[in-house]
Amino acid sequence: MTTKTLVPTEVHAQVQHFYAHQMQALDSLRFEDYAATFTEDGSFQHSPQAEPAVTRAGIVRELVEFHKRFDGDPVQRRHWFTHVALQPQPDGSYASTVYALVVTTRPGGTPVIAPSCVVHDVLEVTDGEVLTRSRLVTHDQMFQ
Amino acid sequence: MTTKTLVPTEVHAQVQHFYAHQMQALDSLRFEDYAATFTEDGSFQHSPQAEPAVTRAGIVRELVEFHKRFDGDPVQRRHWFTHVALQPQPDGSYASTVYALVVTTRPGGTPVIAPSCVVHDVLEVTDGEVLTRSRLVTHDQMFQ
Amino acid sequence: MTTKTLVPTEVHAQVQHFYAHQMQALDSLRFEDYAATFTEDGSFQHSPQAEPAVTRAGIVRELVEFHKRFDGDPVQRRHWFTHVALQPQPDGSYASTVYALVVTTRPGGTPVIAPSCVVHDVLEVTDGEVLTRSRLVTHDQMFQ
Repeated sequence: MTTKTLVPTEVHAQVQHFYAHQMQALDSLRFEDYAATFTEDGSFQHSPQAEPAVTRAGIVRELVEFHKRFDGDPVQRRHWFTHVALQPQPDGSYASTVYALVVTTRPGGTPVIAPSCVVHDVLEVTDGEVLTRSRLVTHDQMFQ
Repeated sequence: MTTKTLVPTEVHAQVQHFYAHQMQALDSLRFEDYAATFTEDGSFQHSPQAEPAVTRAGIVRELVEFHKRFDGDPVQRRHWFTHVALQPQPDGSYASTVYALVVTTRPGGTPVIAPSCVVHDVLEVTDGEVLTRSRLVTHDQMFQ
Repeated sequence: MTTKTLVPTEVHAQVQHFYAHQMQALDSLRFEDYAATFTEDGSFQHSPQAEPAVTRAGIVRELVEFHKRFDGDPVQRRHWFTHVALQPQPDGSYASTVYALVVTTRPGGTPVIAPSCVVHDVLEVTDGEVLTRSRLVTHDQMFQ
């Protein structure tokens, strides 16, 4: 590894800001907004065992389905990110590897932190606009 | 939501660095330094139920008062931030929405993480200098 | 404290990206890669009581030794960082003060978060390349 990566500083800063808006959309249950942060043919796989959801419409359907488990269970989930590490790909996209924690709070409760995940994204960055082409989330408690 | 925000990349990076210094000042109990990160007429409301503290002197008084609960109770608090999402306002300021966790450690103990909060700031950014005009902190365990 | 620090915005962004790659190397047990993020004569002291490991070879040896405690104990550790606060030093380097949490997950388990630390680095930044000259980690549960 050379410690000097070949990623423009500006791209790293743009990606951080992109993730802030993207994940606040998800945690606010604005699924259309979240899906709009993917490319039209984007792919979202929330665990290695899951079928990937593809296209923006498919991602919205997946999220609606997933969140049915919280019907009648008021809960605020928040996705924490740290260490956004980018690697340029031959086609001009960026591989992005990010640590994620899910923080869940219920009324009157204290936050529960689980699981510890790693987000593996492929990002397209054009003129400061970032889109997620694909996302695979791995989970630390599932050892290979 | 367009995923391409209208915030200069540099401003987002400056705000992240600003928060690092601001919150390390707070956690080091340098209340004058923390208050100096607000505008002269700044407002700081640490929960929706609290009266806002206004002006730098008022913010220092509020913090001195709040921390009396820790007299004789050695404690290290740290405010963790992630996902700094900025939105430009018509008057040139930025609305900043940020996730925050309070991490508390006592001598010999393990960190206790609570509560999960959202920081709602209005920031003034001039020539790379950032100041907080107003801050409201909401708490996830208090559901609306 | 002036809230306008004398650190170029670009340097702060570069340091954030540097830390992402550096700490993902450590957590992936790529000790040679981690050591390569230090200067040739770099120093790494993981607690105030420990002897500092010096030089890249010395840092690798220290990490190999430290991780023997996990032999036969499959564990995924992750180092979370927030609030990277830089201060320029007279010699052109930067003092970097960062909050760190260690997040540990075992197979089938939930993440355990401890300890809460502060990383005190001296960084050399040349043409966008960042190297750690020295690192001292303090631990919040050890009160002075």
